[in-house]
This record gives sequence, structure tokens and C-alpha cells, in this order.
Amino acid sequence: MDDVEAILDLAERISERELASHLRAADTMEPSLRADGSVAVLPEVGAAVRLMAEAGMFSTVFPSEHGGLQLPHLVHAAALGILMSGNLSTASFPLLTVGNARLLTTYGSPAQIEAFALPQIAGESMGTMCLSEPHAGSSLGDIRTRAILEGQDELGARYRITGNKMWISGGDQDFSDNIVHLVLAKTLADDGQPLPGSRGISLFVVPKILPGGERNDVAVAGLNHKMGYRGLPNCALNFGEGQQQPAGSAGAVGWLVGEIGQGLPQMFQMMNEARTSVGLAGAMLACRGYQMSLEYARERKQGRTVGIASEDQVPIIEHADVRRMLLAQKAISQGALALVLFSARLLDEEKTAPSLAERKKAAALLALLTPATKSWPAEQAQVSLDHALQIHGGSGYTRDFEIELLYRDNRLNPIHEGTTGIQGIDLVGRKIRREDGETFRVLATDIRTTLGDVPPGSPFEAVASALHTALGAVEAAVEVLLAETDEKRALAHATPFLFAFGHLVVGWLWLDQALAAEASLCDPTAEADLLFVRGRMHACRYFAEVELPRVDIWLEPLIKGSSLVLDMSPEEF
Amino acid sequence: MDDVEAILDLAERISERELASHLRAADTMEPSLRADGSVAVLPEVGAAVRLMAEAGMFSTVFPSEHGGLQLPHLVHAAALGILMSGNLSTASFPLLTVGNARLLTTYGSPAQIEAFALPQIAGESMGTMCLSEPHAGSSLGDIRTRAILEGQDELGARYRITGNKMWISGGDQDFSDNIVHLVLAKTLADDGQPLPGSRGISLFVVPKILPGGERNDVAVAGLNHKMGYRGLPNCALNFGEGQQQPAGSAGAVGWLVGEIGQGLPQMFQMMNEARTSVGLAGAMLACRGYQMSLEYARERKQGRTVGIASEDQVPIIEHADVRRMLLAQKAISQGALALVLFSARLLDEEKTAPSLAERKKAAALLALLTPATKSWPAEQAQVSLDHALQIHGGSGYTRDFEIELLYRDNRLNPIHEGTTGIQGIDLVGRKIRREDGETFRVLATDIRTTLGDVPPGSPFEAVASALHTALGAVEAAVEVLLAETDEKRALAHATPFLFAFGHLVVGWLWLDQALAAEASLCDPTAEADLLFVRGRMHACRYFAEVELPRVDIWLEPLIKGSSLVLDMSPEEF
Repeated sequence: MDDVEAILDLAERISERELASHLRAADTMEPSLRADGSVAVLPEVGAAVRLMAEAGMFSTVFPSEHGGLQLPHLVHAAALGILMSGNLSTASFPLLTVGNARLLTTYGSPAQIEAFALPQIAGESMGTMCLSEPHAGSSLGDIRTRAILEGQDELGARYRITGNKMWISGGDQDFSDNIVHLVLAKTLADDGQPLPGSRGISLFVVPKILPGGERNDVAVAGLNHKMGYRGLPNCALNFGEGQQQPAGSAGAVGWLVGEIGQGLPQMFQMMNEARTSVGLAGAMLACRGYQMSLEYARERKQGRTVGIASEDQVPIIEHADVRRMLLAQKAISQGALALVLFSARLLDEEKTAPSLAERKKAAALLALLTPATKSWPAEQAQVSLDHALQIHGGSGYTRDFEIELLYRDNRLNPIHEGTTGIQGIDLVGRKIRREDGETFRVLATDIRTTLGDVPPGSPFEAVASALHTALGAVEAAVEVLLAETDEKRALAHATPFLFAFGHLVVGWLWLDQALAAEASLCDPTAEADLLFVRGRMHACRYFAEVELPRVDIWLEPLIKGSSLVLDMSPEEF
Repeated sequence: MDDVEAILDLAERISERELASHLRAADTMEPSLRADGSVAVLPEVGAAVRLMAEAGMFSTVFPSEHGGLQLPHLVHAAALGILMSGNLSTASFPLLTVGNARLLTTYGSPAQIEAFALPQIAGESMGTMCLSEPHAGSSLGDIRTRAILEGQDELGARYRITGNKMWISGGDQDFSDNIVHLVLAKTLADDGQPLPGSRGISLFVVPKILPGGERNDVAVAGLNHKMGYRGLPNCALNFGEGQQQPAGSAGAVGWLVGEIGQGLPQMFQMMNEARTSVGLAGAMLACRGYQMSLEYARERKQGRTVGIASEDQVPIIEHADVRRMLLAQKAISQGALALVLFSARLLDEEKTAPSLAERKKAAALLALLTPATKSWPAEQAQVSLDHALQIHGGSGYTRDFEIELLYRDNRLNPIHEGTTGIQGIDLVGRKIRREDGETFRVLATDIRTTLGDVPPGSPFEAVASALHTALGAVEAAVEVLLAETDEKRALAHATPFLFAFGHLVVGWLWLDQALAAEASLCDPTAEADLLFVRGRMHACRYFAEVELPRVDIWLEPLIKGSSLVLDMSPEEF
């Protein structure tokens, strides 16, 4: 526990001193393309990355033989979250780099790990993931980037890669020794044609600088100018356009990682990790927005308490509607954080739980939850930050305050790493229908167990009752989804189902937290912080009273078989 | 009708050619303060204002003796809305100027109208409203700006005004001959002290350039740098700081408008008009966002239709979740527009309905609806634009597309001219409790009349049923609000009540439109556009199926008397 506390303390100090300090500057002076085609970022970004590397923020989860600290993923997630709350753009470098290195340590050869993963674990090289192309964002089976076998060397099967990649976060910058791109590309079948769909996709590691020191044939085609999240350069990259000629010929040099044709399933390790991290980002921006609006509400004086005449104006936290918006934020932001950290714990348990059955259960639950862990915090954080901005009044709409920046930064979270719509399809199509609801029933049993822990006469009986109703509605919806023979009709309700499912799980985690809080009050040895504990109990009640009833509404059209959305033809809009 | 069509056509042409054309430029090159203290705006803004003036966009609603076109307010609102959809910031100049001139023609003396209103109706002077101060935004009774009587001249009682005003839209710019500020300030009682609260507040007209051509003592203290809505300069203004010395002494020269001590009630004419215009802005940004995302969804190809193998990708409008987001936008944006135009019609009927009873009814309904007409479109437009941005995917998050700009622009609408929280208090406190629910019951009767128009077996029976349920819930909530003796407890639920009330009214207007659409289908002379009519019917059904059930959820804590929000102490957050 000392190690854990030390790393979290360190993350907190770095977050405030080195990350939050350049948040506004990185927004105002966004990355730019130099005449030589390189990308200039704010010097503070590189300096903060070096400090994070020194503090071990790139190595937390790795085994000691790879230079890692061997800490649980849960600790990594907590530390990364703290960094994100200070400056999401700059904290995205460890996010992407750790994910990249972890994928390499899982599927790469020892030589590939040595050459490409270890420098990332040391925080010297940065990692990217290159999936989308201009015509293929959500539909990765349609990518056109090609990989042609050139030979074999100590790093494995060597290919030349040609194609255009889009939306590459950290695609270029000017502060790290090297950039390690993980690239999805299609190899060619015997007839010289790529296989259609996702079967032809393999994974390649393509460094910006080749092991011999030569520049690889990877060029920045342009920068995307974003609404927020501006500190992190987002690039269009051209592979193999021939500006560079490594070893005398055009084509980006890359090495096959893992198995031919397994690019997409392998990439999903990094993508799932990135999805959880997107949820973490949403949760932490919401937490920061909550803290900032709480501080503002305690300081800003405006108006009088209803029914009390006074000369002086009162802090706006005295107004019921401001408290309502604070309570909503607390319920959302801390609920979202609970969801993400629960998923992070499952990632640990998947590997370290004592029995195979527990490890399998953790892996299955994690897979089931991932679409919600990504989307629920991303979507709900925007709702939460909307309250935070509103509490600031006109000031919140100005760039003199940080809140408008958080509001802009978070708006990417429901889009990147698979939009909310894609997550809904993943949940309903893959995670529920394809496995006939099996893991969902495991989750439902766990929720029932928690409900069983609420004794009669408990202050949380009303919460338990609301959660019980929500569970019943989601179970009914799952039965409808499983019985539906027409895939299109089932998927038409996927997003509302995803929202309802997320609410159910967060409601469950809130009840769990409230019960733990109550238990700590009754335990004379626990030294409970009374205000903290009561605040959590209030937030739990708020979630049950105001949020959980929405589950029914999201699911009703599905349960009653409405086809309203499908019935409207494109011409009628 | 020819005049009406001509002015709407003209507004449409100006909107696309002169306003939308500088939308991005005005966002990128926001207003700046020159060394001499004046505010520079993009030249295109002034050019567009001149064109709008020539086209009569400042004079639509005024009587011909004031140089006006004598058109109904409904027509003015429709034309202004079309301008707003092209460029909200630039269209805000006619919005504010017309409101200012209308207030002057109502309460000003003939000489004041001649000097200050007519140049605004001609579009040569621009108008502002100066209410807020740094320490007094929502709480106007606390303003500190002082007015000291100096003498009497042909423009009325002349005062010297001293104080700091905040958040002044159009507070300065460099394209109009003059700027007419309408300023709230406190006169002094016999003891030399200002009266506390709002009783001491009077209204003054304070021009930037005095009638003799001398500069008045009004200085720009600074510009607010906003998240969006950037084309419209927003200023802190200092009145009477002494940089200018009109007639040889410091103090801004202003003339009393209307009665002493009546500043706030008089200002409410302009404020109510501005509130309806904020709602109009939200509705029109949502409409534009809907159109843009519809166009994008028809063009952008990605993925395949579920269950249909095809070589080519399909337009994303083929995906159910994209259609869901389009339908939600259609239901919100066109519902919001119906609400705002209905209010605009009430403003006409208040003055022109044949009988006194009808005029009184229109005035009462308008007052009841105004908080919802302001807030519902403002809040719901953000939801709608969120869908529009999401449909654009990663592209929507870039500044290459307009949608992120609309998303940022609209976020001010739930804040300015009275936040959503303030509107809720106005609705519950003033418009429902203070008049014992009288006008609400008139509205409920009108809604019941529409429900009675739905014949048995109608395709809108389900819609009528959902609306009936929502009406019952709102009526039950009103009874609870009227019975509550503790004002604080009643107001604690004001915002959720406002949301529910807005949904009820919009649901009613949707049913009304759907019935009209259906009738046009059955009328062989109506030349109905079938796709248009069916689209409206779908949107109505969607609103009833997905949106109206939320009414119950918003109201349940109120109806069951929850005090959760008030129970949480400020320290427990």
C-alpha cells in the first residue's frame, strides 16, 4: 500500500504542477506543422512527458524484466486518471504509449519487445495506433493500406507498407527519440489481391526512426484542427509515399507482429485498453469539473436564500438549483469513476484471480462491461460538465475559466475509439446476443447478491427497490433482444439499451459504495470522515431517485417492439 | 402573404450569402480592443448589418410613422430566425437593436423616440441592454450604478451615470454611427442613499455619441473572450469613469426613460423579447445542425446495412442509430421552433386579437410560456446539436466542419438573459404560484381541446394518450406546488418542473402539427408534400414515444415531496 500511495501522490503532484499548468497554453497554441513536415508541440508537453517517465508513469504495469514496477492495472488506471484530470492531452501520451507497449509485450517477439516496447516503457519512445483511414473509420474491414513482404531479419518478417492513415493521435511530435506506430494493413493473397473484410488485416510495427537511425517513409500529411483536446497533435499520416527512401527505396518499413490475418483481434487488446481509458478520461474530466464548480459555488455570491432577508448576498451553493446540479455531477462523476476502476480491477483479476473460474469470470465481465465503461462516462461526463459550466454562469462561457475547456476536451470522448453507436452494437450484437446472454446473467446474479445485502429497514431500501426495478427492466429487454431473429431490429435499439445498461451497472456500484460507507459509520475502528460518507450516501440516493427511473424509458420502445426509427425512410427526414 | 414571403425569401438570401459566409471568420478573428479603447470587429459584420438594414430587417415590426413595415411580430421572428441560422452573432445586432427601439417606442418620449429609436429602426444606430454588473448578474436588485439628476432638456430629465456594467453584447463596435445603451441605474432617495432592492432602479438611455456629436463618458473596460458566439463583442463597460468629459465634466450623460423606479418592470419588455429570441436562436441553431447532419448522413459512406452483404459501403443514414439521432433532432428542433413561433404569435394576439378577453388570454399565456420559450429550445438545442456533431464522427470534432461552431455558439443560450435556473423560478414562483395556477389551467384546457380533436381510431391515438398522461402529471405537480407553503421547498423543484412543462407544451404543439399534416393529406386541394407530411408525423410519434415519458420522471421527486437536494448540506459535497 505504501508503493501505491506513493505513486498516486506523485501523480497528483505532477498533475497539478506540470500538467494543469500548461492546460490553457496547449489549447491556445495548438500543434503546428513546420515547413519540413515535422509537428511542433508546446515545449511544456515534452517536459511533462519526461517528468512522467522519470516518475514511472509509463512503466507501472510492466513486469520487472521489462523495466516495469509490476503494479496492478488498477493502480495504473488511478494514476493515469489523476494525470488526465490535470491535462488530458498531455496525459494521452502515457495512455497511448503504455497500450502500445503492452500490445507489443503480448504479441511481439523478444527482439521486437527489446527494440520497440522497452523504449516506450522507459518513456523515451512514444506509441500510436494507426487504424482509421479517410474512407474507413468505424468500418475497419475496408482499409486499403497494403503490406508487401520484403524479407526476414532479426526483427521478424519485414514488409513495405503503403497507405493513408487518419486520426492518428500523437502521430508526430518533436520531443521523443522515436515514435512507434502500430499499423493495421492488408497483406496480399496468392492472387496478388488483398482479402476482403477484416480477415486480410495484419498488425505491423512501424517506427518513425528505423533501428539503424534512418528515417522511415512515414510523413505527416496534415494536422486536424479540433474543437478541444488540442494539446495532443492529431495527424493524417502517409505511409510509403516515397519522400523518404529507407534502404534506398520507397515504402514504410514495418515488421509483422503476431500472426498473419490476426491484426484486428490483436489490435483489440490495445483498443479495449484505450476504450477503458476513454471512459477514465470522461470520468476524470467530470470529477475535475465537479470540483471546480463546487469551489465556484462556495465562493461566488449572488442573490439571497429564499425567505431570508439579508443585506449581503449569499454563496450560490445556498440555492437549491445549484445544489441539484452539484449533486447530479457528484452522482455522475464518482459513479463513472467507480465503473472505470471496477473494470480496471477486472483486468487484474483476469490475470491474477486464484482460480481459473474466477479468471474466466473476470475476463467475461470485463468484455461485457467494456462498451459501457467506454461510453457511459464519455457521454455522462458531457452532461456533468454541462452542469459545471452552468453553475459558473457567464463566467463559465469565457476562456478565463477552465470549465469551457474541459467541456470542449471531453466532447471527443463519445467519438474516438469507437463511437457510442458502435459500442451499443458491440454490447447488443457481440456481448449479449452472440453469447446468448450468458455473461449478462452472471452480472445480474452479482447485482442480486448486492441487493440481498440490503437488510430490511436499511436507509437504502428505496435505492435497492429502484435498482431492483431497473434490473428487471434490463433483464426483460435482454430477453427481447435474445428472442429477436432479425439482427437489424435488435440493433436498432442498441444505443438506448447501452445507456440503460450503463445506468444499471453504475446504480449497482453506487449501492455497493453506499453500503460500504454505512458499514464504515458503524465500525468504531474505521475513522470515517462523516461528511465524506454522508455525501456519498446522498449521491447514491440521488442516482436512485433521479437517474435510475430513466432505465425504463430508454427500454420501453425496445420492450414493446417499436420500429419507429426503422419505419422512417431516408427521404422523409 | 406576398409581403411575408418576400421578406422571408430576402432573409434567406441574406442569411446564406452575407451571414453564413463569414461565420467561421468571425469565430477565428474575434473582436479585439484597439489601443484607443475602441472595439474592432470583422468588416464583414458591419457590411452584413448594413445589408440587413437596407432589407428592412430592423424595421419589420414598427409602425409606418416610425419608418416601419408594420408586419406582425411572428413575421419578424421568422425572418430573424432565418438570419440567426446563418450567423447567430451577426444576427444578434438586429435582435438587440429592435428590442431596444421597441422599448423606447413604448416608454420613451416623442423626442427620445426621434433621437434614439428612429436611427435604430433605420439600422444606423445599434442598441444594447446594460443590466448586469460584476457582482450582480441574476440579482439585479444589487446593482450599484448610480444616476444623479443634472437638469432637464428637450430629451427629458438628464442624469449623470456612474458604474460598471458587465456582459454587454454589442457594447462597442466600429461600424455603426452610434450605439444606444439602455442602462439600469439607481437614483438616490432624499437621504442621498439609493433605495435597496429593485425599487430604486430606473431606466436610462445613454448614447455613445451625444446628440451634439460629443463622445459620452462610456468606456470599454475589456472584452470577454468566449467559448463561442465570438463574432458578437461582449464588453465590460465603465460609465462615468471620466476619460471623456461631456459638457466639461465626468459622468455619462443619460435621460430617464419612463417612470422613476420603474426601470426593472420596463426593462422586462425588452428582456422578455430577448428571452424569446434566445429560444429562437436555440431552435434555429438546432434546425441548422439537423440539416447539416442530415446532408452529411446522406453523403458519408461507412459500413454495410445489417444483414446485407455488399461490396460498397452505404450512406450512414442507412444505419438505424444514425436515423435515431436524426429523428431526435427533427423532433427537438422543429418542436422548439413551433414553441417559439407560437409565442411570437401570442405577442401579436396580445395587441391585435379582436376581443379584450382574447388579448388578455394571449398576454397571460405568453407570460406563462416565456420561461419555457427561452429555456426549452436553449437546453434542448444543445442535446440536438450533440446528436448532429456525433453523426459527423471525428469530422464533427474538427473546425473543418461548421457543427462544432454551432455547438459552441448555442452553449451560451441556457445562460444569458436569465439562466435556466432563473427561468424555472420565474415559472414556478411568479407564473404559477403567485397567480394560483390560473393561466396554467387555461393552457390545460387548450391542450384538452386538442386532445378532443383526435378521433377514435386515429393514427395519433398513442400520441394523444402519451400527451394525456404528461398533462396529468404536470397538473398533479402544479397542485403540489400550489399547496406547498414553504417557498424554498417549492422552488427546489423549479428546473425539473420547467423541463417537464416545456416537454408538455412542445408535445401539444407536435400533436397539433401532426393533426394538421394528416388533415392536409385528406384534403385533395391541399397539394401536400407527402414526404414532408409523413416526416412530421414520424417526428410527432417519436416525441410522444421517446420524449414525453420523461415528464413523469422529472416530476416524480416533486410530486412525492422529496427533499433530497435541500437535505444535503454544503459541507457534504
